[in-house]
Amino acid sequence: MALLGIDIGGTKTIVAVADNEGSIVAQAKIDTPQEQGPGAVLSEIECALERLVQEARVSPGDIEAIGIGCGGPLDRDRGIILVVPNLPGWDNLPLTDRFQQAFRVPAFLDNDVNLAALGEARRGAGVGVDHFAYFNIGTGIGGGIIIGGRLYRGCGNAGEFGHQVILPDGPPCLCGKRGCLESLASGTSIARRAREYVATRLESSILKLAGGLENITAEVVAQAARRGDRLARRIWSDTGEYLGLGVANVVNILNPRKVVIGGGVAKAGDLLLDPVRRTVRERAMTQLAEDVEIVPGDLGDQAGIVGAIHLALERE
Amino acid sequence: MALLGIDIGGTKTIVAVADNEGSIVAQAKIDTPQEQGPGAVLSEIECALERLVQEARVSPGDIEAIGIGCGGPLDRDRGIILVVPNLPGWDNLPLTDRFQQAFRVPAFLDNDVNLAALGEARRGAGVGVDHFAYFNIGTGIGGGIIIGGRLYRGCGNAGEFGHQVILPDGPPCLCGKRGCLESLASGTSIARRAREYVATRLESSILKLAGGLENITAEVVAQAARRGDRLARRIWSDTGEYLGLGVANVVNILNPRKVVIGGGVAKAGDLLLDPVRRTVRERAMTQLAEDVEIVPGDLGDQAGIVGAIHLALERE
Repeated sequence: MALLGIDIGGTKTIVAVADNEGSIVAQAKIDTPQEQGPGAVLSEIECALERLVQEARVSPGDIEAIGIGCGGPLDRDRGIILVVPNLPGWDNLPLTDRFQQAFRVPAFLDNDVNLAALGEARRGAGVGVDHFAYFNIGTGIGGGIIIGGRLYRGCGNAGEFGHQVILPDGPPCLCGKRGCLESLASGTSIARRAREYVATRLESSILKLAGGLENITAEVVAQAARRGDRLARRIWSDTGEYLGLGVANVVNILNPRKVVIGGGVAKAGDLLLDPVRRTVRERAMTQLAEDVEIVPGDLGDQAGIVGAIHLALERE
Repeated sequence: MALLGIDIGGTKTIVAVADNEGSIVAQAKIDTPQEQGPGAVLSEIECALERLVQEARVSPGDIEAIGIGCGGPLDRDRGIILVVPNLPGWDNLPLTDRFQQAFRVPAFLDNDVNLAALGEARRGAGVGVDHFAYFNIGTGIGGGIIIGGRLYRGCGNAGEFGHQVILPDGPPCLCGKRGCLESLASGTSIARRAREYVATRLESSILKLAGGLENITAEVVAQAARRGDRLARRIWSDTGEYLGLGVANVVNILNPRKVVIGGGVAKAGDLLLDPVRRTVRERAMTQLAEDVEIVPGDLGDQAGIVGAIHLALERE
């Protein structure tokens, strides 16, 4: 028996084959050829998955289910994406149908960040934790909520932590609103603020490290901060404070035992987590701030695909 | 068979007797004699409840359980209050023990706003709604979360909607932090802002209606607004916008089917709800704003005691 998982990202897609307990036995990463349109992307994913099944010597008849993660909002019951800002042209694309037909087994769809939360719940920082909140800090900011050991989805798309309003008159957000957490603490926002500061000739090593204004990324700002660059350290401290306000709100609302912080930007580690923890202590209600532990994710970039496999395993 | 309920407030306490299906058959309201200390308050509540049991011709042997609502945060497992800002001296008071001993039946304790949410879930605006968020707007702002038809409590004190940070540099809040929703949209905040505006001689009928600066309350500001007073209308519109930001955050996080708004200040009706609904449409993610209906509570001041009875009925 075997399970298949697909984690579709804006630039990279991971496919995996797992055994019947959800342990991944083979995995591949391919570019998401977005510019060729969704049809080509789905064909490439299908080919990559078929190759992987062969390589893993899994008989097609042994495959039991497929779990698929993708950006949201989406309609899980119909297995389609509603609107994905970083995947233009994918609106209303029937994702599960395609893979159900290709492999003739049931396919299950969920938001990629929900699946990262599920991955951390089953095999990462959330193992044994009955209820926790998962923040994914990458290009954007997403969230997932585990309650009673299971994903809580509300009407289908709960956990949009990145679109909490943190500064009502703050900068515009990709979602069309203003002052959302995502517009203040995502990787995109870190890079934008660094470029703005550098462009006003604030003294900093960031520009030299990046080798050009357009090459400034959150990762470069983290490198500069670790080397003691004052501007870079301030950018991380501001980012952690904004994120801390968003985490404090989630703590006040959900009173979770843990907040797990994953995603590419979370690789900055304590540069990000220290100001988050400080801000939560200052801003959340005392008892609730004491109840919660704020930790990095255990699974890194694997969280989403591990979650996709568990979605297939649990047939949700 | 019978159930008892107690809803302890800072100024008034309601006690009730219900049948074995949770329908209230007798009820009384007494002043909470706070100035005499918690011992006297508990004695008065016990006496009121014993009188009510006699009046309702319920035999003490028929009583099955007691549900108690009180301000939080509290420790439900130990049946004690941790810290209640509006009940000074009650810290660590063993509430359930007292009533368990008096009536020799199990007693259950929960946050009064959680119980109001439970009341609305069982017999009010939340009947048949699998998951919803309840906001209580009174002197302060509290919240309750229903998931899968049951109260969600997190580590014990989830739903502190009033202490979300709405304006990071906003006014001080009773909780010791700044810019919390409660500091911007509670009845206390409405009255404070009205007094501040009136003191700067802004033209308004509020002062005359109140008969003195110190008599200005949210209710007076609502009266003035209904008579067309422009300042009063602006205060309600600002209040609804602040509250709308808090509701939008909860909508983005929980993606609920309904948001139910109760509490004394919610009696202002559409003066409050119209700007809340507008702000949620503007500020929450489009799909999630479309999923949610924002409605007033059905039970008014009865929500808390109805919830206390259901806590006893469900033995939670």
